[in-house]
Amino acid sequence: MKRPFDIVRLHHVEVTVTDLERAYDFYVHGLGLFETARDDTHLYLRALEDANHHCLVLTKGEQASLNHIAYRVSADEDLDELERLFTKLGTKKKWIQPGEERGQGRALRIQDPGGLPVEFFFEMEKAERMLQKFHLHKNTKIKRIDHANCLITNIEEVYRWYSDHLGFMTSEYTVKGYGEDEKMWAAWMHRKPSVHDLALISETGPRYHHTGFWMDDAKSILDACDHLAAMGYARNIERSPGRHGTSNAFFVYVRDPDGNRIELYTGDYFTNDPDWEPVKWHLDDPQRATFWGTEPPVSWKTEAVPVQDILTGNLIEPKPLAPKPQETV
Amino acid sequence: MKRPFDIVRLHHVEVTVTDLERAYDFYVHGLGLFETARDDTHLYLRALEDANHHCLVLTKGEQASLNHIAYRVSADEDLDELERLFTKLGTKKKWIQPGEERGQGRALRIQDPGGLPVEFFFEMEKAERMLQKFHLHKNTKIKRIDHANCLITNIEEVYRWYSDHLGFMTSEYTVKGYGEDEKMWAAWMHRKPSVHDLALISETGPRYHHTGFWMDDAKSILDACDHLAAMGYARNIERSPGRHGTSNAFFVYVRDPDGNRIELYTGDYFTNDPDWEPVKWHLDDPQRATFWGTEPPVSWKTEAVPVQDILTGNLIEPKPLAPKPQETV
Amino acid sequence: MKRPFDIVRLHHVEVTVTDLERAYDFYVHGLGLFETARDDTHLYLRALEDANHHCLVLTKGEQASLNHIAYRVSADEDLDELERLFTKLGTKKKWIQPGEERGQGRALRIQDPGGLPVEFFFEMEKAERMLQKFHLHKNTKIKRIDHANCLITNIEEVYRWYSDHLGFMTSEYTVKGYGEDEKMWAAWMHRKPSVHDLALISETGPRYHHTGFWMDDAKSILDACDHLAAMGYARNIERSPGRHGTSNAFFVYVRDPDGNRIELYTGDYFTNDPDWEPVKWHLDDPQRATFWGTEPPVSWKTEAVPVQDILTGNLIEPKPLAPKPQETV
Amino acid sequence: MKRPFDIVRLHHVEVTVTDLERAYDFYVHGLGLFETARDDTHLYLRALEDANHHCLVLTKGEQASLNHIAYRVSADEDLDELERLFTKLGTKKKWIQPGEERGQGRALRIQDPGGLPVEFFFEMEKAERMLQKFHLHKNTKIKRIDHANCLITNIEEVYRWYSDHLGFMTSEYTVKGYGEDEKMWAAWMHRKPSVHDLALISETGPRYHHTGFWMDDAKSILDACDHLAAMGYARNIERSPGRHGTSNAFFVYVRDPDGNRIELYTGDYFTNDPDWEPVKWHLDDPQRATFWGTEPPVSWKTEAVPVQDILTGNLIEPKPLAPKPQETV
Repeated sequence: MKRPFDIVRLHHVEVTVTDLERAYDFYVHGLGLFETARDDTHLYLRALEDANHHCLVLTKGEQASLNHIAYRVSADEDLDELERLFTKLGTKKKWIQPGEERGQGRALRIQDPGGLPVEFFFEMEKAERMLQKFHLHKNTKIKRIDHANCLITNIEEVYRWYSDHLGFMTSEYTVKGYGEDEKMWAAWMHRKPSVHDLALISETGPRYHHTGFWMDDAKSILDACDHLAAMGYARNIERSPGRHGTSNAFFVYVRDPDGNRIELYTGDYFTNDPDWEPVKWHLDDPQRATFWGTEPPVSWKTEAVPVQDILTGNLIEPKPLAPKPQETV
Repeated sequence: MKRPFDIVRLHHVEVTVTDLERAYDFYVHGLGLFETARDDTHLYLRALEDANHHCLVLTKGEQASLNHIAYRVSADEDLDELERLFTKLGTKKKWIQPGEERGQGRALRIQDPGGLPVEFFFEMEKAERMLQKFHLHKNTKIKRIDHANCLITNIEEVYRWYSDHLGFMTSEYTVKGYGEDEKMWAAWMHRKPSVHDLALISETGPRYHHTGFWMDDAKSILDACDHLAAMGYARNIERSPGRHGTSNAFFVYVRDPDGNRIELYTGDYFTNDPDWEPVKWHLDDPQRATFWGTEPPVSWKTEAVPVQDILTGNLIEPKPLAPKPQETV
Repeated sequence: MKRPFDIVRLHHVEVTVTDLERAYDFYVHGLGLFETARDDTHLYLRALEDANHHCLVLTKGEQASLNHIAYRVSADEDLDELERLFTKLGTKKKWIQPGEERGQGRALRIQDPGGLPVEFFFEMEKAERMLQKFHLHKNTKIKRIDHANCLITNIEEVYRWYSDHLGFMTSEYTVKGYGEDEKMWAAWMHRKPSVHDLALISETGPRYHHTGFWMDDAKSILDACDHLAAMGYARNIERSPGRHGTSNAFFVYVRDPDGNRIELYTGDYFTNDPDWEPVKWHLDDPQRATFWGTEPPVSWKTEAVPVQDILTGNLIEPKPLAPKPQETV
Repeated sequence: MKRPFDIVRLHHVEVTVTDLERAYDFYVHGLGLFETARDDTHLYLRALEDANHHCLVLTKGEQASLNHIAYRVSADEDLDELERLFTKLGTKKKWIQPGEERGQGRALRIQDPGGLPVEFFFEMEKAERMLQKFHLHKNTKIKRIDHANCLITNIEEVYRWYSDHLGFMTSEYTVKGYGEDEKMWAAWMHRKPSVHDLALISETGPRYHHTGFWMDDAKSILDACDHLAAMGYARNIERSPGRHGTSNAFFVYVRDPDGNRIELYTGDYFTNDPDWEPVKWHLDDPQRATFWGTEPPVSWKTEAVPVQDILTGNLIEPKPLAPKPQETV
């Protein structure tokens, strides 16, 4: 189906931190992101490949949380098409004026059916691209933002919404249960031809699990660990480097000083072939989460940050997964 | 402009070799590609990520040459749209019947304005994907095909043709001359959001310079060199590993036993942002070809293989670049 | 002090496995070691750098255990000097005749003061060196044996014995307790100028914790994980890749099908400077075991295999660490 | 043969540069070495592993040249033993007083039979070791000095001198000519158990070809190229990265702004086994210099810096290789 709009890719996220100076140390000195701009309550950062103003906004607030996930569209008029769609679907929405998010043109924000705050925009200011200024790179070399990983309670509804209405494609998915009880447990969805721009996981939600950033290779991810640990951030390395079964990516997970989670990620694959058959995993497969068989720590499986209501900015109270009928008795 | 067809990416190439057994040793044992099928005159190969029948066809013939470059489209009806376009443009064209190229559905072949043989197709048979069968990987680990690099004599015409009619975008380009004499010398064009599916270079043409294959990281490319050299293919390593200024990719160039050139390639970047401003290089910039400053060998700059006429299969006689008017006196 | 003998390095170990075919699959197909020779009860393996008959002997037996750790000396007469020393010290000892261990000249075996079975030898048959036969390398590329890690109950005695009588030097050590209660908990000792040939750890002993093998770089260790996991050995990857604080090495730990533990190891440093001051760590330092802060799994901390008596071949019953006097009341 | 002294390893070199500020930019910002001390005419640098004052001294002078190559001995009295030896051999020698070379105890300097200025010392001041201060590492991560590569006209004499009198061992060597005309052309000699501390090459001499520094892996060497090129030092990258046949090392060669040559080097092997049989190469073997078959640039083969007379500090006039008798007619 040809749609009247084209979502290009996940472009940036905005998350809340409680101390901007402390966050600056972690994200700029530790993760090697470059500062494009800052004010009393915001820090606008970009990665090595970025030719635009920001791929990450850190905003001062009372606790770690997700302000919004932003997708870039291919033309300004796509935003009007999206507004028409959301009006038709009855989606909660709001226009953001040009410059209201620094460096950015007009944007349309919505709350998706899973409760996630999502933004669409077309225009953003340019910024100096650092890709070949290798001598200015830090030891942590993040190339670009890759994906957003979200916890929701109604995956089948949300999955269909992104597939049917926004044209997201699916690279891989995980089921739980067997036979008639088999249900979707997670999905990796994309607009750019990588494994994902968006991962949806069935869990107490809406919550935000992590932002994934692309690095060139596994060695770069190991270098990042050394650099962060030597700075005093060893405890922030939450899950040891390894290879995911799902996505085939090599990863490490770190937490910022407020608990926002970052995945340093590399090594997935091209996904745009029209006959791609999504890879299916079962939740019980021990190689699904870590192809090498080791288990994630408990915090990685249970902790995530709340998300904001796009109209009020309030944190949305997460709800547990709906119990199965027989369990409610 | 929204077009009635969507070209997804460079999907495969077919080149001619004089000895299939010798080619098998080089491509399967040396480059680690997997055999999907073979007959007396063809070898169909795929790379580690491929879920389809082939990304490379080797066909027995009298000398190294390019049979065709194939792009995949997103729907079968795109092929009819393309036929209408080529009819309108007066492009030499020919339908290939389903199965005429083994494993492939119907395909449309053309001779582009630069004289290059090009194919469009939608349907291809599935094949076993080897990505996570790491224990079956050879020491050379090619993930997928990346790009085709072609020499032509009329770059401005060909460049506009791919841009205006087929919707190719430009990531980078090189000019020669200064001021009023500045002219386009090369262009890196893409449909998938990488630096290129197609590179066009101003040179005696039409000729085919190389097929680029993606590897995961620089270390994998060095491992390939060790493996090939130990097999006795040291002389086939034509241009030492290095980083390109243009594309930012890390590379090595090898020649098959017939002289067909392969680039092992990694480390370029995402390119689909709608406001991407193509990176401009000057031919005189010493960091353009090798960011580290070393020169390619003469053979790399002067040698390339001829291309075939899509109707007759004959090799097209390459012509030198048109001399400037004042040079003809 | 100049000694009348010179111990060059840890040269090989002999361990027991219950099923030679299963062990062959793990060590040859999985770890990429090369078979030099085999008979009904032994498999003799060498690594990529080895120009000699074996760096690892697998011997069929009833359970995983350590038969002996072997050090190479610089001259045949060094063995006579060592015999004189061990006679003087009253060390339990035994001569092994030439060929009794296949491919090896005469050897002197002892039980060290910690109860570990140790061998000294000079002469060994040559074998084909595979270092530059890159095309014959598997995906796991072990270069050479590096060290033996042993658990003993009397570290201060054993440490002094290796230091004073055999000329082992210390690169790093760990203490536990504070102030007057501070005691040595572990020591990394070497003859070759690396961090260690021998690690001694205070634990229920004598037991054998692991054999360390050198690989070229961290990427090679990650490749080994992929290869082993794809073969079905994901559960054998016991401790995820990481960097040790002690030794600075990058590592992964795997268990063979019988439970013998292997460390794939790289990235330590040169240690022979005469004024080297051993690096001191405290057992409570969270960056000691894993510089990046993550914890080893329980099995890694508690499991190890028994060692053999050099005269009887019987397994020595491990004893727990002696309780402190005040704890015995 | 047990000698009354023990040479541990190549420890540092002193070379001349014409502009200390420019050299600081290259060696500290570019190569990532750390400054230990400086004065108006000297810069004392150390690498990441070094626990001592310096592995490289840059001294202001009129042109690039070698002041001296320094080996560390295992005890202070070894220096007296060496003096006795050199007196017996009639070697030109000179004592350097403690502190005369900053940070260093007394040292014995000689001119070896090839005309090379060589120093032996035992004592050196400590300096902060940077190995695990990963966050302070630059993008070029040199771990330690590895070897000195020298051009001489009388290799057989010099080779025997280092072998017979100083106890250097040989890991590999190259011959030229065939049959009766076969002669040694180059030798890789070591005291530490690596491929070399000292390489001797038959060429116009005495001249100094390069200082080799150890890096952890090939990726680190490629990162150094990116970093140097981005700083504007692309032209200083003289020979592209590759693998040597001899030594098996992965390398790149760079020139400092005065022309002193540096090899960034990794991946050789352990060499101290008492039955090591030196690897023999023939000068005509195309895989000897570059295992992958590509040729070094002419400058690499022809250019080298002069060496100083240890007594006068004057540059020694290099002499061409002696012609064979029949060639003099």
